[in-house]
Amino acid sequence: MDEVRHKIDFILELEKLKAVLRKTRPVGLDRFENSAEHSWQTALSALIFLEDADPSLDALKILKMLLIHDIVEIDTGDTFVYDDQARADVVESEMAAAKRIFGLLPDTLGAELLSLWVEFETRASPEAVFAKAMDRINPVIQNLNSSPNSWQKYQISQDRVLAKNEEIRNASEELWNVLESGILGAEFDHSN
Amino acid sequence: MDEVRHKIDFILELEKLKAVLRKTRPVGLDRFENSAEHSWQTALSALIFLEDADPSLDALKILKMLLIHDIVEIDTGDTFVYDDQARADVVESEMAAAKRIFGLLPDTLGAELLSLWVEFETRASPEAVFAKAMDRINPVIQNLNSSPNSWQKYQISQDRVLAKNEEIRNASEELWNVLESGILGAEFDHSN
Repeated sequence: MDEVRHKIDFILELEKLKAVLRKTRPVGLDRFENSAEHSWQTALSALIFLEDADPSLDALKILKMLLIHDIVEIDTGDTFVYDDQARADVVESEMAAAKRIFGLLPDTLGAELLSLWVEFETRASPEAVFAKAMDRINPVIQNLNSSPNSWQKYQISQDRVLAKNEEIRNASEELWNVLESGILGAEFDHSN
Repeated sequence: MDEVRHKIDFILELEKLKAVLRKTRPVGLDRFENSAEHSWQTALSALIFLEDADPSLDALKILKMLLIHDIVEIDTGDTFVYDDQARADVVESEMAAAKRIFGLLPDTLGAELLSLWVEFETRASPEAVFAKAMDRINPVIQNLNSSPNSWQKYQISQDRVLAKNEEIRNASEELWNVLESGILGAEFDHSN
C-alpha cells in the first residue's frame, strides 16, 4: 500500500511539468509549448522512426528514456538548447532534481529510472544516442513550419542550428537529409 | 525519402492534439489539460505500474497504445467519459479519424498503429485492458487533488465515478483500493 502511495505522489508531481514552458510554440498555437506535451510528441516520434532503426535497439528502453527525459525541468525549468553556458551551469542542479524526483518512487524503480536518465544524458548507449537524436527533431519541425520561429526570435544562426541538430543523423541519415535541406532553405535573422 | 516525408507530415499533424482540451485541469493550474500532455502522463503512469503487473504483458505494446490512444481527438475533440450518449455517438467518427490520421503514415506502419488503436478501444487483449485502466487513473488523481473538481463541476455522482473507474482494478487491485478509498472520502455535489 505504501509503495502505491509513493507512486501516486510521483504521478502527482508530474503535473508540474505541464507548467514548464519551452522556447518553441506548437505549430499554429499562440502560446509556448510545455515540456509534458513535448515529451509525448518526442516519444511518439521515436516510435515512428524506430521502424527503420537497427533492430537490435531496445525500443522499450528508448520510450522509457523519452518519457522521463525532461522530468528534471520540474525543478530547473527548461534550458534553451542553444544557450551553452546555461546548459553547462544546469548540469549539477539537474542531477539534484533527478535524485529528488525519482526518489519519490519506491527504491528499486527510482534507481532504475535515475540510471536510465543518466544514461540518456550522457549518451551512454546506442539507445541513448537514438533517444537524444529524437529529442532534437520536434523543435526543428516546429521551427521549419512557423514564422517567425524561435531561431529568428533568439537570433540563432543557420550554422549553429545545423551543428546542434546534426546528431539527428545518428538515428536516421535519411531523416537528417530531409531536415538539413529544410534548414538550408529556411530564412534566418542576419542582423547579428 | 517519401516515407520520411510522410512520417514528418504525421508528426506535424500531432501538433494539433496540443490544442484539444479535456474537462480536467492540471493540479494547480488555471487552465484545462490538453490531450497531448495527458497522453504523456498516462504512458508514464503505465510505466510506473507495469512493474507490479503480470510479467507476461508486452510493456512496449502498452506504451505504444497509450502514446497513440487519443490521437483521434484531433478530428473529434475530447468526449467526456461520463457522457455515455456522446461516447456512443462518437464511435464512428473516431474510427474515421483513426483511418485518416494513421493513413498519413507509410502503409505498413499506419496499419499497425490503426490495429493497435482498435485493439485498445475494444479492450481486445490483456495489454489493452491494462492500458484502458491506466487511462482512467490520472483524472481520478487530479480530481482527488483539486477543488472544485470536474466531478463537482459537472455534477457526476459518487456512484458513477466508482462505476466508471473500477476498471482500474484490472491493472492493480492495490492501486484501485487506494483510489477507491479516496473517492469514498471525497466531497460530491449532491444538488442533483
